[in-house]
Amino acid sequence: MIVPTEIRASVVTGVDHVGLVVRDADAAATFYVRDLRLPVLLDEVLHERAARLVWIDAGNVLVQLVQPIGPGAVADFLETRGEGLHHVCFVVPWIDHALTAIDADTIDGIFLGGRGRRACFLRNRPAGLLVEIYEDGAGGL
Amino acid sequence: MIVPTEIRASVVTGVDHVGLVVRDADAAATFYVRDLRLPVLLDEVLHERAARLVWIDAGNVLVQLVQPIGPGAVADFLETRGEGLHHVCFVVPWIDHALTAIDADTIDGIFLGGRGRRACFLRNRPAGLLVEIYEDGAGGL
Repeated sequence: MIVPTEIRASVVTGVDHVGLVVRDADAAATFYVRDLRLPVLLDEVLHERAARLVWIDAGNVLVQLVQPIGPGAVADFLETRGEGLHHVCFVVPWIDHALTAIDADTIDGIFLGGRGRRACFLRNRPAGLLVEIYEDGAGGL
Repeated sequence: MIVPTEIRASVVTGVDHVGLVVRDADAAATFYVRDLRLPVLLDEVLHERAARLVWIDAGNVLVQLVQPIGPGAVADFLETRGEGLHHVCFVVPWIDHALTAIDADTIDGIFLGGRGRRACFLRNRPAGLLVEIYEDGAGGL
């Protein structure tokens, strides 16, 4: 008889992507596409976030290259911190439930993020990390 | 008949972990363990790197909490940049071959990293990203 030693019920089901703010997504993509030979999944513009998103498929997780295309949070980050790592995005089955489960507040509510996913950024930055949450719902890529 | 449109032969097989520099790994781990209900895979000390590594299993990828335990690169990062995202680690079958394939130089050679893996950091920082490479060889966890 197999006796489970732990009932695991994680709030998140995995990491969707790691987000990097870059000055020029085309230039940044060359390392992933030419050197690592990884494919580009999607190249899209989120006008509401004033950002272009280029998605690199690293196999088990995506790399999101975020290029500012106008004034906003992304341009501000680039200005003050320079290019580099920006956030980690975890996947949950249902955002509203996850926010309740971890008693978390969002920076500016739930929005339609990249790849058509419902998304939010957590106001709390655990150990300095900007955390994004994506909903693993139907409709998105 | 299925005709492949692309022969894919990536240099990397996936992302092993995302590394975060933290002041106190126990305090930082509470978000992952208590809130997200993710398990700790390993808690280890790398004396040569003057760092304690706490590994969180996020399912498809690991989160590595890096706490300085003495003077060195990790303590320097914490001092100058503060807590937060530090690097992304990709997996390759064989480091020596990967370094040749992407024509990359390492920061301080190949060393025995966390979980007993052969590892190196790339000197080149593509779009500001510090890239680590782990070898998916036998022996390591």
